[in-house]
Amino acid sequence: MTKYILNDFIVEEHVKNALKEDIGFWDITSNTIFEDDYIVKAKLNSRADGILCGVNVVKKIYEILNPKIEVKILINDGEKIAKGSLIAEIKGSCKDILMGERVALNYVQRMSAIATLANKYAQAVKPYKAKVVDTRKTTPLFRAFEKYAVITGGAALHRFNLSDCVMIKDNHIEYAGSIKNAVEKVKANVSHAHKIEVETENFKQVKEALEAGADIIMLDNMSLEEMKKSVEYINGRAIVEASGNVTLDTINSIAATGVDIISTSAMQSKAGTLDLGLDV
Amino acid sequence: MTKYILNDFIVEEHVKNALKEDIGFWDITSNTIFEDDYIVKAKLNSRADGILCGVNVVKKIYEILNPKIEVKILINDGEKIAKGSLIAEIKGSCKDILMGERVALNYVQRMSAIATLANKYAQAVKPYKAKVVDTRKTTPLFRAFEKYAVITGGAALHRFNLSDCVMIKDNHIEYAGSIKNAVEKVKANVSHAHKIEVETENFKQVKEALEAGADIIMLDNMSLEEMKKSVEYINGRAIVEASGNVTLDTINSIAATGVDIISTSAMQSKAGTLDLGLDV
Amino acid sequence: MTKYILNDFIVEEHVKNALKEDIGFWDITSNTIFEDDYIVKAKLNSRADGILCGVNVVKKIYEILNPKIEVKILINDGEKIAKGSLIAEIKGSCKDILMGERVALNYVQRMSAIATLANKYAQAVKPYKAKVVDTRKTTPLFRAFEKYAVITGGAALHRFNLSDCVMIKDNHIEYAGSIKNAVEKVKANVSHAHKIEVETENFKQVKEALEAGADIIMLDNMSLEEMKKSVEYINGRAIVEASGNVTLDTINSIAATGVDIISTSAMQSKAGTLDLGLDV
Amino acid sequence: MTKYILNDFIVEEHVKNALKEDIGFWDITSNTIFEDDYIVKAKLNSRADGILCGVNVVKKIYEILNPKIEVKILINDGEKIAKGSLIAEIKGSCKDILMGERVALNYVQRMSAIATLANKYAQAVKPYKAKVVDTRKTTPLFRAFEKYAVITGGAALHRFNLSDCVMIKDNHIEYAGSIKNAVEKVKANVSHAHKIEVETENFKQVKEALEAGADIIMLDNMSLEEMKKSVEYINGRAIVEASGNVTLDTINSIAATGVDIISTSAMQSKAGTLDLGLDV
Amino acid sequence: MTKYILNDFIVEEHVKNALKEDIGFWDITSNTIFEDDYIVKAKLNSRADGILCGVNVVKKIYEILNPKIEVKILINDGEKIAKGSLIAEIKGSCKDILMGERVALNYVQRMSAIATLANKYAQAVKPYKAKVVDTRKTTPLFRAFEKYAVITGGAALHRFNLSDCVMIKDNHIEYAGSIKNAVEKVKANVSHAHKIEVETENFKQVKEALEAGADIIMLDNMSLEEMKKSVEYINGRAIVEASGNVTLDTINSIAATGVDIISTSAMQSKAGTLDLGLDV
Amino acid sequence: MTKYILNDFIVEEHVKNALKEDIGFWDITSNTIFEDDYIVKAKLNSRADGILCGVNVVKKIYEILNPKIEVKILINDGEKIAKGSLIAEIKGSCKDILMGERVALNYVQRMSAIATLANKYAQAVKPYKAKVVDTRKTTPLFRAFEKYAVITGGAALHRFNLSDCVMIKDNHIEYAGSIKNAVEKVKANVSHAHKIEVETENFKQVKEALEAGADIIMLDNMSLEEMKKSVEYINGRAIVEASGNVTLDTINSIAATGVDIISTSAMQSKAGTLDLGLDV
Repeated sequence: MTKYILNDFIVEEHVKNALKEDIGFWDITSNTIFEDDYIVKAKLNSRADGILCGVNVVKKIYEILNPKIEVKILINDGEKIAKGSLIAEIKGSCKDILMGERVALNYVQRMSAIATLANKYAQAVKPYKAKVVDTRKTTPLFRAFEKYAVITGGAALHRFNLSDCVMIKDNHIEYAGSIKNAVEKVKANVSHAHKIEVETENFKQVKEALEAGADIIMLDNMSLEEMKKSVEYINGRAIVEASGNVTLDTINSIAATGVDIISTSAMQSKAGTLDLGLDV
Repeated sequence: MTKYILNDFIVEEHVKNALKEDIGFWDITSNTIFEDDYIVKAKLNSRADGILCGVNVVKKIYEILNPKIEVKILINDGEKIAKGSLIAEIKGSCKDILMGERVALNYVQRMSAIATLANKYAQAVKPYKAKVVDTRKTTPLFRAFEKYAVITGGAALHRFNLSDCVMIKDNHIEYAGSIKNAVEKVKANVSHAHKIEVETENFKQVKEALEAGADIIMLDNMSLEEMKKSVEYINGRAIVEASGNVTLDTINSIAATGVDIISTSAMQSKAGTLDLGLDV
Repeated sequence: MTKYILNDFIVEEHVKNALKEDIGFWDITSNTIFEDDYIVKAKLNSRADGILCGVNVVKKIYEILNPKIEVKILINDGEKIAKGSLIAEIKGSCKDILMGERVALNYVQRMSAIATLANKYAQAVKPYKAKVVDTRKTTPLFRAFEKYAVITGGAALHRFNLSDCVMIKDNHIEYAGSIKNAVEKVKANVSHAHKIEVETENFKQVKEALEAGADIIMLDNMSLEEMKKSVEYINGRAIVEASGNVTLDTINSIAATGVDIISTSAMQSKAGTLDLGLDV
Repeated sequence: MTKYILNDFIVEEHVKNALKEDIGFWDITSNTIFEDDYIVKAKLNSRADGILCGVNVVKKIYEILNPKIEVKILINDGEKIAKGSLIAEIKGSCKDILMGERVALNYVQRMSAIATLANKYAQAVKPYKAKVVDTRKTTPLFRAFEKYAVITGGAALHRFNLSDCVMIKDNHIEYAGSIKNAVEKVKANVSHAHKIEVETENFKQVKEALEAGADIIMLDNMSLEEMKKSVEYINGRAIVEASGNVTLDTINSIAATGVDIISTSAMQSKAGTLDLGLDV
Repeated sequence: MTKYILNDFIVEEHVKNALKEDIGFWDITSNTIFEDDYIVKAKLNSRADGILCGVNVVKKIYEILNPKIEVKILINDGEKIAKGSLIAEIKGSCKDILMGERVALNYVQRMSAIATLANKYAQAVKPYKAKVVDTRKTTPLFRAFEKYAVITGGAALHRFNLSDCVMIKDNHIEYAGSIKNAVEKVKANVSHAHKIEVETENFKQVKEALEAGADIIMLDNMSLEEMKKSVEYINGRAIVEASGNVTLDTINSIAATGVDIISTSAMQSKAGTLDLGLDV
Repeated sequence: MTKYILNDFIVEEHVKNALKEDIGFWDITSNTIFEDDYIVKAKLNSRADGILCGVNVVKKIYEILNPKIEVKILINDGEKIAKGSLIAEIKGSCKDILMGERVALNYVQRMSAIATLANKYAQAVKPYKAKVVDTRKTTPLFRAFEKYAVITGGAALHRFNLSDCVMIKDNHIEYAGSIKNAVEKVKANVSHAHKIEVETENFKQVKEALEAGADIIMLDNMSLEEMKKSVEYINGRAIVEASGNVTLDTINSIAATGVDIISTSAMQSKAGTLDLGLDV
């Protein structure tokens, strides 16, 4: 079971907007057919294997639509689910349960898919010291949910946004004249509370970045040999992050080079959706 | 080239929120290193084959960040791109171009991936009269962009939300007592401007739905034989929509049954992201 | 009693903005004079005959201002009220009851007036098969409330907005070259889930629209004779909607032509407000 | 011509929300039929006599939808219009002109109707010193537009909201023990920048209010004799406001009593809409 | 104890935005270290002497973060606090109490500092009839809280914003030609519900303002002699407001001139923060 | 001259809300007296010595109110101003210039006061290696502006919010059992992109924090001797931050202990406002 670190009042606002997006004026089918007091029980079931993520969001959705709906959570975020797992029982007005069904599934299916894939990546590097982390390649306006899903799956995070960690790339280096200059400029101007990461393309740059005092050195698209050589050279004096061509097939050998961190957008971009369903 | 039907002022609001999400307080790297008047040219290149979608959104992002940035669009939404295609040239302050890079790519990579996959589905049914349409299984708060991408890829749309088309499912039928009752209740209460779709699970229900006067009859998870039989029975008296187990492998045989519409969430849920990059 | 189909969380947001509009910083009169614990009973009374609409909105307003205020609803939306009817009893802090009075009345008086007028139109066509429907001529940002009031009064609705039903008018026809061309273009591009309505000005156009496959044919400002002729010609092959010069005086004869639908903005634009009052 | 005192950036936000309400996802008719570069000229014409109000709002709507649309205003707010008056010429993309048509008319028709009725009230009291003012009985979220329309028609305003003028009513008086107590309590606590109005029901209360130091004394539903007697007694020592049963029939005799102000919600609640149209 | 006149639903919105500003994605320290069910008691203590203001806002913050947190208020807004005073006891999840600590203190420390300084000003003029009032020189988006704090400290308020009281300054007078012209223009156009204040720089202008019928005459940066002379001349025929060079040192002599009102921005601009702390 | 790192589109939203707060419905004075085409020149002058901050915000305010207003900036943010300095010339409609005056000054006066005080702190430690940084003790919803002002004055920043740097305090240590445990728990769970700061109260804790691998060690309210001892012991192995009792009087001796960072909320909480004025 993973800690639920999304803030309730922020989730509430997001979910209300998503409900508006999906409802429009009102649900012309369920409002027409059901009486409000037609009470049913629904079950949120899994139809696939994976890691559950987002069940609290489902609960929140029904709280918003109708505070009288009871959502009993049987499996928590971060726990394994398999085809047939009963995740939650929902009891209340049929009209409202159906009105929220699609939005609820849109959250939990996507979040669970990310958690499931993140878990595969996390499992793959278990024998090594490396952690797998995500990137900022997230769906617009859905980042908090996707980052939470990555954690839920057992992987870790890179920075949240452009203001919480420095990332010096080739354009910055070119303009500043050298990695040294770039890092110095940053050190002189940026809060001591934030780390400095430098993206390097070859061993020469790795040495420069280390000398310049980078906190994190990213090895971008390097060969396994270069990575290994860099790790040995850095030798704990900076955090080493590998990036580029990270797949479930390649991640083992990357981890074996001894890097501390492997970053990949795959956990979010290739996750798709996990098949869950609401059965009334 | 596809028609750009997203409204500018709505895109603007969405994009501003996405920029806030990604920027936080400010970009501590680029703000520190670059002078504002360091002007560069950047190129939005494709690194994969597909259908472009979202280049106007990229342009909007840069308009918001800095009205002096010039974005010259060379390939339009809906056009084919291949590895190496130059999509747009962007000229302006390096600081702002890099600040918007990630958000811009997050939109256009996801939208293009959906358009690309939608195009594959659309191509697959070209020999038949059937149209492929999407569903409401979209990422929360991103629906307008995802639906636009589906159109851009050459596929078509199902309803936007719960208020623009009636969809009668098993729970509604059960509560109403019969398909006939459900449709009658709806007809008595819903605007004449909206269609009524009935989800059916077998041939018996198809007949009932037709008799009840459904505008659209959905054949849900039926065998190819049942579908064919249903199409022949309906014989143009209602629109026939097939749903369930739709993949690029199965869609041909489904289309061959003669259905009018094939609906699938795959175009959005399985699209991932298309590899595009910004080279400064 | 009518079904209350407004979504609580959407009403809440609307009402909060209306309260902000009316309160400004704070109520300098009631905040100054009353102690918070001065509890009173207030009665929402009718001072005119009509159909009640909006009493749940009143309840919501007081929930927002002060959750301790009890609102006991005695008459429900859609029910008849007469001069002197006691609609609801409100008990709680006098300060908050008075602070919300004006906003509460502004909703319920306008909504009840629309419901009352809609009811007159609905009654007027009762002997005929025609339904009276509203239009998009609503007060900006108040549409959901006005459409709900129309239903509450017993009349019906036309489309909600520009994306849930096609409406082909003279400009579209002219540009497309003919009704046939316009409808074909639409059919090729618009979701199968949405209907196509064509606005016609004469019998010739009616025939063209029918032939082109319009779902709904609007007879715009036609004479009673033309309407009757059109209805007979169409003979159930499309929904027939009459529009133009619809008043309580003319609606009978229009309905008598056999049209299915009569659309008018009068229910919203001519309703005014119904005289209700809050007596403390 | 009236001064246009609505703030542009506030109108912009209101109008964007109204466009979202009316557009939904996108205009499925005009987006389908017209090419973007199909340029037309449209005319905003009057089909009734009245006072124009809201033409700048129309202009703003088109600026938002498409900055290339040119709106040439020929008649300004506050000017008389008659059946056939050409109010504005609009030139630009047909798609966008039609997409904004309904929203534009919804503002200008309602605002012009209020200005027109306000003008009738203002004309009615011209021979007297009395001014006609509005109330807070406005449509939720539309107050600024309705108050601007009242001014445009030549009538005047009462307070904007609960924080800009004190209004002591029967409940306040009862709780405070007397008008004197209520006014004293208010004077001790409310800003010197705000006026104090007392609602009185009879001559005895008028005397008490004057003695207590009210800035404005409202004569609520009094007979003409009582009003006259009150005016004479007050004799310029406070502003005298008449309220209750104000119609175009009664307002003359009320004004003749010598009151300074006559307040009525009729200008907003009974205005309906003025018939204007957009001809492409 | 002062009346709490901030509206709950408005405070809620403000506080949610402040929490978003301070939390970012989530509290990476407390979320990592504490289990959710680690319950602690915290005390809101004063570490300085002053007047408390904002304790209800603290309560609201914790209601939003976690409805299970209990906040027991022991000292109310407007009451004296001294170093060591126990203001409130807060019991609940340690994680949430710490997450909200900084935001809670940011409100209550600033509001209490203003109340404390306002109290000093109010005390200073106690022997005189003059009231001390604030100005519109407030922190952007924080005005309602700052104005409430001024009242809580025992001082009074000037207008809320530009629409609730007329303030004629030198530019207005110059353009209008004279004070008389300016006041007449205003009287003809502005609601009878709003007062007219004229800013004067010398005795000549005071006489003109009085003659023109100003409700409030501001003596701007006048000498004590001029003020006294003006007060005597005006003799109760208008409210007299002194402004300029108001400090705790000068306010006594200003009040002694007999003015009704002394306005100063010092209560808000010079308040700083009052030292309060949360001890877990 | 300081770099202007506030994002235009974020400033715009903030400023619009501040204008709404200050304008209410509309400016009843200037709208009444001035014609729109009365064009004047205004000067933003300094009436005190300090560091300018916020002049771009002033420009933005006038862009929003009236795009035709020209604001010519003569002194840039970060530059010294003295009594009499001409900061900017503003030319345009008098009505709009006066309408925006108060809000413009509210931003620039507060931001310049913070920059001025920050500059004093920055100057005070110039002879030493220490940097002065701010805290999260900012005015709710005004943080970005206050942090920008701190930079503009030449001081530096601590973290932006709770998600960009870990800060382990006494409660965390107590719950975790030891500093070591707390840091380990954090290291296992928090992104490698974020630093870990530990707040220590004595030398024993300093040693534990260093051993545990803290990136930043805060010496909270320690004596100068303890600080010096800690700095020597740490010897560059972590960043050393001093906190507590930081004033312009004490900061020199604190800096002399050799700490890297001195954090204080004084730059924001004690700044007040700098006297600037708009002369038309």
